[in-house]
Amino acid sequence: MRKIFVIGIGAGNPDYVTVQAINALNEVDVFFIMDKGEEKEDFVRLRKEICERYVKDKSYRIMQTVDPPRDRTASSYEPAVLTWHEQRARIYERLIGEELGEDECGAFLVWGDPSLYDSTLRIIDQIIARANVAFEYEVIPGISAIQALAARHRIVLNRIGRSVHITTGRKVAEGLPNDIDDVIVMLDADCSFKALGDSGFDIYWGAYVGTDDEILVAGNLRERKGDIERLRTEAKARKGWVMDTYLLRKHDA
Amino acid sequence: MRKIFVIGIGAGNPDYVTVQAINALNEVDVFFIMDKGEEKEDFVRLRKEICERYVKDKSYRIMQTVDPPRDRTASSYEPAVLTWHEQRARIYERLIGEELGEDECGAFLVWGDPSLYDSTLRIIDQIIARANVAFEYEVIPGISAIQALAARHRIVLNRIGRSVHITTGRKVAEGLPNDIDDVIVMLDADCSFKALGDSGFDIYWGAYVGTDDEILVAGNLRERKGDIERLRTEAKARKGWVMDTYLLRKHDA
Repeated sequence: MRKIFVIGIGAGNPDYVTVQAINALNEVDVFFIMDKGEEKEDFVRLRKEICERYVKDKSYRIMQTVDPPRDRTASSYEPAVLTWHEQRARIYERLIGEELGEDECGAFLVWGDPSLYDSTLRIIDQIIARANVAFEYEVIPGISAIQALAARHRIVLNRIGRSVHITTGRKVAEGLPNDIDDVIVMLDADCSFKALGDSGFDIYWGAYVGTDDEILVAGNLRERKGDIERLRTEAKARKGWVMDTYLLRKHDA
Repeated sequence: MRKIFVIGIGAGNPDYVTVQAINALNEVDVFFIMDKGEEKEDFVRLRKEICERYVKDKSYRIMQTVDPPRDRTASSYEPAVLTWHEQRARIYERLIGEELGEDECGAFLVWGDPSLYDSTLRIIDQIIARANVAFEYEVIPGISAIQALAARHRIVLNRIGRSVHITTGRKVAEGLPNDIDDVIVMLDADCSFKALGDSGFDIYWGAYVGTDDEILVAGNLRERKGDIERLRTEAKARKGWVMDTYLLRKHDA
């Protein structure tokens, strides 16, 4: 039976890879790597470096394909994403069927952790639902960008006995729920924290966390938001892409 | 200058340890291990096993101390926790000052990830504020119980474009916010999910996730909550302690 690993490789630092992930990497015959837009070169290179660094005494193949573009002009977010997943499911299904022998093992290497804001597991579920190709699969957790951010700022995400909310830039732009004190924001291309006005928040922001390009900023949101926006714009211009995350911590009344 | 590592060792499976954590472990002269209540033997053993398995060609000392008990009868949760942190800060401060040479490196091994519902970083902050002993410190992220749970259930924690809420059993018992769809619950000794009645939720529950004792249950909360409570009670009786986590996923209207 074919086997697929979905392996979280951690967010940024190749040292974030776990022993469990290394063991899985060493069982893989075919790595499926999707090119994704502008950041593609760096991301493909990181994945290849992880294979080279951690796979010992085993030959493997790399299947590199181009990710279909997502329709970013669609008026409704979720249907556009679902259509995109379906396109990708068809591509992956074909790759698994054609490129992987009956007893071989394939893998998708997921930036960060497969359980947070990543589509790989949804696509695997779609392939299984289509039932054209049979395989077993296993998920290996990885260090997420959130954990890297917290570690580098040396903070605990929750306050004592309180909750933590994880959300997207899109949701922050729509307005935060009232009763939420600590909010981690991912996928925020528009610096939505600016829209929070001068309500009392601290921000712990980081880009390229855990890498040589890491930028960290912490402090009062009102005082630091201009700096963060500027640093983010400069970094994106310099590198071609930016990946950032932040924690908003509401001041106690 | 003295150095302290706060190292996330992952939740349960020794293979969850990262390469970054292994590198840090190999710089450590003194591991500080606190005994904590009933689960202490297993937890102390796991930490020692991780040292033995991953530290190569370096001698190290293990300083084992007894954790002061937290006042669980206190009427107010947060002050009792703060008092407990202060007691632990005094103990750790003394250990760092007395047991660690001026150029030596010490470490605390944190179950899961130091950034989520763990007190070690708060205690380090308190020691720094007391300013009786000087040291630098670094935080190494680890695979949290939440990620282990998601990986073993092979699920994504968020739904497309939506938020995820992380909270405690205590908060769930007080009632969930209305506008929250996906809730991860930690530190729930009282099976607070029972209080949610028959409102439409799926539950993804796990105990001892990633270990040989792992128990996983998923399904409709109404149908599975009895099983989970029974399994949890039996497991706790058998092993002396239980560590579990779960995701509640509200049915779409």
